[in-house]
Amino acid sequence: MKKLINNPETVVHESLEGMALAYQNLLKVNFDPDFIYRLDAPIINKVALISGGGSGHEPLHGGFVGQGMLDAACPGAIFTSPTPDQMLEAAKTVNSGEGVLYIVKNYSGDVMNFEMAVELAMSEGILVSNILIDDDVAVKDSLYTQGRRGVGTTLIAEKLCGAAAETGYNLQQLATLCSQVNLNGRSMGMALTSCTIPAKGSPTFELSPQEIEMGIGIHGEPGREKINLKSADEITEMLALSIIEDQGYTRRVQQWNIESETWSEIELIDPPLKNGDSILALVNGLGGTPLSELYIVYRKLNEICQKKGLKIVRNLVGNYITSLEMQGCSITLVKMDDELIKLWDSPVKTPALRWGI
Amino acid sequence: MKKLINNPETVVHESLEGMALAYQNLLKVNFDPDFIYRLDAPIINKVALISGGGSGHEPLHGGFVGQGMLDAACPGAIFTSPTPDQMLEAAKTVNSGEGVLYIVKNYSGDVMNFEMAVELAMSEGILVSNILIDDDVAVKDSLYTQGRRGVGTTLIAEKLCGAAAETGYNLQQLATLCSQVNLNGRSMGMALTSCTIPAKGSPTFELSPQEIEMGIGIHGEPGREKINLKSADEITEMLALSIIEDQGYTRRVQQWNIESETWSEIELIDPPLKNGDSILALVNGLGGTPLSELYIVYRKLNEICQKKGLKIVRNLVGNYITSLEMQGCSITLVKMDDELIKLWDSPVKTPALRWGI
Repeated sequence: MKKLINNPETVVHESLEGMALAYQNLLKVNFDPDFIYRLDAPIINKVALISGGGSGHEPLHGGFVGQGMLDAACPGAIFTSPTPDQMLEAAKTVNSGEGVLYIVKNYSGDVMNFEMAVELAMSEGILVSNILIDDDVAVKDSLYTQGRRGVGTTLIAEKLCGAAAETGYNLQQLATLCSQVNLNGRSMGMALTSCTIPAKGSPTFELSPQEIEMGIGIHGEPGREKINLKSADEITEMLALSIIEDQGYTRRVQQWNIESETWSEIELIDPPLKNGDSILALVNGLGGTPLSELYIVYRKLNEICQKKGLKIVRNLVGNYITSLEMQGCSITLVKMDDELIKLWDSPVKTPALRWGI
Repeated sequence: MKKLINNPETVVHESLEGMALAYQNLLKVNFDPDFIYRLDAPIINKVALISGGGSGHEPLHGGFVGQGMLDAACPGAIFTSPTPDQMLEAAKTVNSGEGVLYIVKNYSGDVMNFEMAVELAMSEGILVSNILIDDDVAVKDSLYTQGRRGVGTTLIAEKLCGAAAETGYNLQQLATLCSQVNLNGRSMGMALTSCTIPAKGSPTFELSPQEIEMGIGIHGEPGREKINLKSADEITEMLALSIIEDQGYTRRVQQWNIESETWSEIELIDPPLKNGDSILALVNGLGGTPLSELYIVYRKLNEICQKKGLKIVRNLVGNYITSLEMQGCSITLVKMDDELIKLWDSPVKTPALRWGI
């Protein structure tokens, strides 16, 4: 295993130390329990946004902590959920009194731990809500996940809700917005190569020299199928059409009712994309793929969207939700309206996304 | 060869097309000859900055085109110099009448072609100057290069000179500034893995599973030595000390005299870094290395600089001058003063660097 690390056991800790040093003007890192938080938190009169999940997907989530996006991020061990005490301490640190929204990618460990954190936070008198992101159209029910997995739409939701929180949305409004963005977003990814978790020391899965995996999960979970290597245009078309032609899916989600302080199961359905829709397009690298290749994917994606009558009104091309050094990419399309575009364009100042400030 | 491409022959062209689509609000791409330029160029009363070089190092240089940085970038084929006609056409397109500064990485092909471009531009009545960046302390005289190679200081010079151009520096002042930044900067890199040029289809060089290359060039040129894999801290120390303890080097550079319209050979020496210096630290990924590992490198670099009495006043951690999907990193340290810090902090709006706008 060739990596720029000192010890598989200290990768996350040392990486967080480096991040704290590099972004002293933006954020702080609390250790034991580990969480990254805005230097200026808590922000008076603002609902706090917290996300988190296994490490190894950088810049997600820590790279999105800062003005106009997250107030805190809770990193777990690599590809492993953070624990409820991290989420609780983060909430206590960044809550201004207006409450906390947890944005959670749909993986069973994360879901369970964030649900526990919700109850712990409530028991400490913190107003809290949790919203699941489950936007990956590749497969339903997979390793680590019941239902669809949460991927690229997560960071779009973090940006949009972060902007909304700055303008004064209350917790209920933010939870509604976050849930809507999730329903508006769909993603699918593919891998050219595997990745190696430091503590394991060998590749998570195997692909032969001519094989790629369509619909891969960000932890290397099996996707739809292993196929022979195809051209970038063919791969892009397979991903894009899987997203565009997805007919939506009905999920039953446990959501915390802030007022009654009870859980309720709600049913959510995402409507399919349709001709004339405005969309945000994210072409995301999985960590080891050159930017130049992501542009080739974006070129074809743009052509396909045009043909399908989808108007790309905003885009993002780069490494945003990665799987260590995995080569490959994912595509995320999020239906946008004027309100969402305005929130997208709002100033943001984080390590990984920054404009207007 | 597993890559997200359609055809090795069309990689650069298609990638540029994708980039143009993704950044329609910032830049345009001219094809045949190929160059990327600011949407709003030429900027009245501003000296234009142009850089360029082989493709495969993205985001360098095209990702640095925009307000506060480059006016144009000329991409060659992968790891191959662009041609003088690209540089000339770019100059004609972005020159407002205040002249053009070419920022050139020291590789023989680039040097020769940019020198030809200087003469062509002058013959068309464009005031022009060229400044070489040769900041890589690893080796003197290597494959493709006489003297030291140009690496990470290039993008620092592009940012600082770009900011200075916006504030009204004239061409002579900008050339002086660029030359000074080059003398202030030193870099060294290392590779964990090789990379594969699409047109070749096999790795540029070989490293055994336990071997790394210290002092690697960004095209995979041999560095100082192949050694056994070490810890991130040990690797960081080797790179950092090579830079910090470098005693400087005397180079004789061909520079175009704007007024006399003649070439003259000038001697330039970079003074060593010393206790008490303020520096900008760049920890750069070569393309395939996770961000989390770059933070581990930054953590150790910060400790070493502190011990050596060097104060990191600004930093940049990420993939900025890459070698396709190569795994590894480079470190660049640039001595800063108040003027340079102010220029660094000035607003910039490019695909790869953006703040304040």
